[in-house]
Amino acid sequence: MKNLALMLFLAATVACAQDTGFRPASTNVPGADFPKVDLTGRVEIRIKAPEANKVSVNFWSGPKEDMTKMTDGYWMYTTPPMAPGLHYYTIKIDGAEVSDPSSYAYYGGGKDASMVEIPESGVDYYDVKNVPHGEIREIWYNSKITGDWRHAFVYTPPDYDTRMKKRYPVLYLQHGGGEDETGWVRQGRVNFILDNLIAAGKAKPMLIVMANGNAQPAGWKMPDMNGKGFGSPEFQEAMRHRMQAFEDDEVQVLIPYIDSHFRTVADRDHRAMAGLSMGGMQTFQVTFNHLDLFSYIGGFSGVGGMIGRDPNQPRDFKTDFNGQLADPATFAKKVHLLWIGVGTDEPKMMHDGIAKLHGELEQQKVTHIYYESPGTNHEWQTWRRDLNDFAPRLFQAGTVNTASR
Amino acid sequence: MKNLALMLFLAATVACAQDTGFRPASTNVPGADFPKVDLTGRVEIRIKAPEANKVSVNFWSGPKEDMTKMTDGYWMYTTPPMAPGLHYYTIKIDGAEVSDPSSYAYYGGGKDASMVEIPESGVDYYDVKNVPHGEIREIWYNSKITGDWRHAFVYTPPDYDTRMKKRYPVLYLQHGGGEDETGWVRQGRVNFILDNLIAAGKAKPMLIVMANGNAQPAGWKMPDMNGKGFGSPEFQEAMRHRMQAFEDDEVQVLIPYIDSHFRTVADRDHRAMAGLSMGGMQTFQVTFNHLDLFSYIGGFSGVGGMIGRDPNQPRDFKTDFNGQLADPATFAKKVHLLWIGVGTDEPKMMHDGIAKLHGELEQQKVTHIYYESPGTNHEWQTWRRDLNDFAPRLFQAGTVNTASR
Repeated sequence: MKNLALMLFLAATVACAQDTGFRPASTNVPGADFPKVDLTGRVEIRIKAPEANKVSVNFWSGPKEDMTKMTDGYWMYTTPPMAPGLHYYTIKIDGAEVSDPSSYAYYGGGKDASMVEIPESGVDYYDVKNVPHGEIREIWYNSKITGDWRHAFVYTPPDYDTRMKKRYPVLYLQHGGGEDETGWVRQGRVNFILDNLIAAGKAKPMLIVMANGNAQPAGWKMPDMNGKGFGSPEFQEAMRHRMQAFEDDEVQVLIPYIDSHFRTVADRDHRAMAGLSMGGMQTFQVTFNHLDLFSYIGGFSGVGGMIGRDPNQPRDFKTDFNGQLADPATFAKKVHLLWIGVGTDEPKMMHDGIAKLHGELEQQKVTHIYYESPGTNHEWQTWRRDLNDFAPRLFQAGTVNTASR
Repeated sequence: MKNLALMLFLAATVACAQDTGFRPASTNVPGADFPKVDLTGRVEIRIKAPEANKVSVNFWSGPKEDMTKMTDGYWMYTTPPMAPGLHYYTIKIDGAEVSDPSSYAYYGGGKDASMVEIPESGVDYYDVKNVPHGEIREIWYNSKITGDWRHAFVYTPPDYDTRMKKRYPVLYLQHGGGEDETGWVRQGRVNFILDNLIAAGKAKPMLIVMANGNAQPAGWKMPDMNGKGFGSPEFQEAMRHRMQAFEDDEVQVLIPYIDSHFRTVADRDHRAMAGLSMGGMQTFQVTFNHLDLFSYIGGFSGVGGMIGRDPNQPRDFKTDFNGQLADPATFAKKVHLLWIGVGTDEPKMMHDGIAKLHGELEQQKVTHIYYESPGTNHEWQTWRRDLNDFAPRLFQAGTVNTASR
């Protein structure tokens, strides 16, 4: 009897140890035991570097710490508990900053970096589930603006290939700086989020176009920025060139391409744009310059820093945002949704900049949605949540999706 | 006059120097100056590792050499001239084998490795050109065989979305060992090869399905192979399990999924399968077990090593290949194409194994195509050439593509 009790106790202990234990991350390449993640959000990183003198781990929005050399030639480090979501990191080996060979590569920071996924407990809106699935399609289009072939992804909803007479509204959705058009698919899980929302009847079936936000005019070359800071006139001028090339490509080439190659409803009532960080800035530039083309606008962690404006000066709604917010009543009739969001744990300047814009919009009586993602940083978990809140609000206006059925 | 001549001479020298000079590889991430490639196929590799003691480069089918430390903290190495095509490589930094942060990552060797593309002079069949483009579509399907969600790519030809009544033949196309379903798209450039062939009228418009060849039965776990070699009975048994899971998934789940979600002609006359290396072995296993489903068969650098047979014994056509080659006349009536190929510079065992199979097929009077890719190794340039030769031979039989128009 005593033995049975002991066995039960031991079994419970083992089960408990398993439940709180470290397991290989879903972002690992097949067969890789590390990185491991536990239920508290701690991450164990391990890399083999038997002859290295110093190895450190570099989470871009997390710990940057030395790893410890073990006797078997491996180096180890365990993070404190981290927020759920996808975290970019690299590893420094004797001064070389590289990605972790145990992780799949994700394009960020201008390179194929490593990421570790920490599951969010009780949440499955970005998981692949047993619901009808849309497709992600890769397209190539030739741009007279950038002078090259450009690669983009298009999400088509589950019924796109069966309801052949139906036409669909379109969301143009942009990644952040240092990322590319793969971000919303691989990091953002845009297809699973939309599949799940559509299956639950929460979002209208829509196309989502994800372009490469890194554009520059044909023949133009980025000047040497050696020694020039982000705030320098040269850098700002170069950014302006690139932002303009992106805007021109989207408006003059990409939108006509999508409207001629997919079954879209090609009018402003059925066209939205959103983006994260740099993509949010692009969204505000493109949409406020082309309200004839868009009627839904979303800025995810990135609308504050419009190129060329002094962040310390209050906004002047007569001129800022192309003057479109000067008359809020007219704006509200024209634009069905203005949505801005930010994570509570983002860097103070980013968080406060967007919170401040929210306050100014309130004061100006501009109808809008403001969303704060609790406990998340300038990272993909914030933007997955943003999309999950933003997408259901699209194309719900009276006229939308009725003429097209 | 003398000065003018000198200037012209200098200008010619400069132009000449530019023409033979090193340029950033197309496989680099945007903005990365290295790796650089010159017209002779030499590659300059550079990586920053200021505090490392030893850095070496490891081309999987090329040089494995120490790099040289420069005064600025960078390490450099220049290869001898290498064959055109895509070359996998990694970098070793004080014992840590990692990928090069300057290169895009490509999945190979069971991880996201680096690659450098050496252009093939005078050849553009795998380039993006100004022709109608098909799409690459990502699909997810739930497999009762493997017990999980599986990811696959489908190439749809340029007219797929405009000729809504047309049905298409299908090629199932597999990657190699250590690779995954991304290989034929990213390394192989399958879409550009097919777009170009179709635009030139050389290949029939077709769907191409690229599945993940790494499968295992639901609930089955790979046994610990510590100390067990590739030839051990345990390893062979595990391979058999995985090959069977792949075959069952393709035949019982994937093909029905494709035939119910795409406009296919769902019969053996309009279904082909091919694969490279491990994918070639999978192709021969699946097709020769299911000639009721397939009538075109391609093995790219990988048909010789059928699981479980002794490579030193001559084939017995009564039993090998499921006995289907015992009667070549019957086989020729049933199978429209049997195609095998290998690169002349592949490892001797691989090259000679496939050349030997070619000889045995000749002797047995089995109608087939044998193709040798000149000067290329067990690498993607061989397989791009294979596909470029193989695809135009598909679905050209009398009945094909007529009933379906």
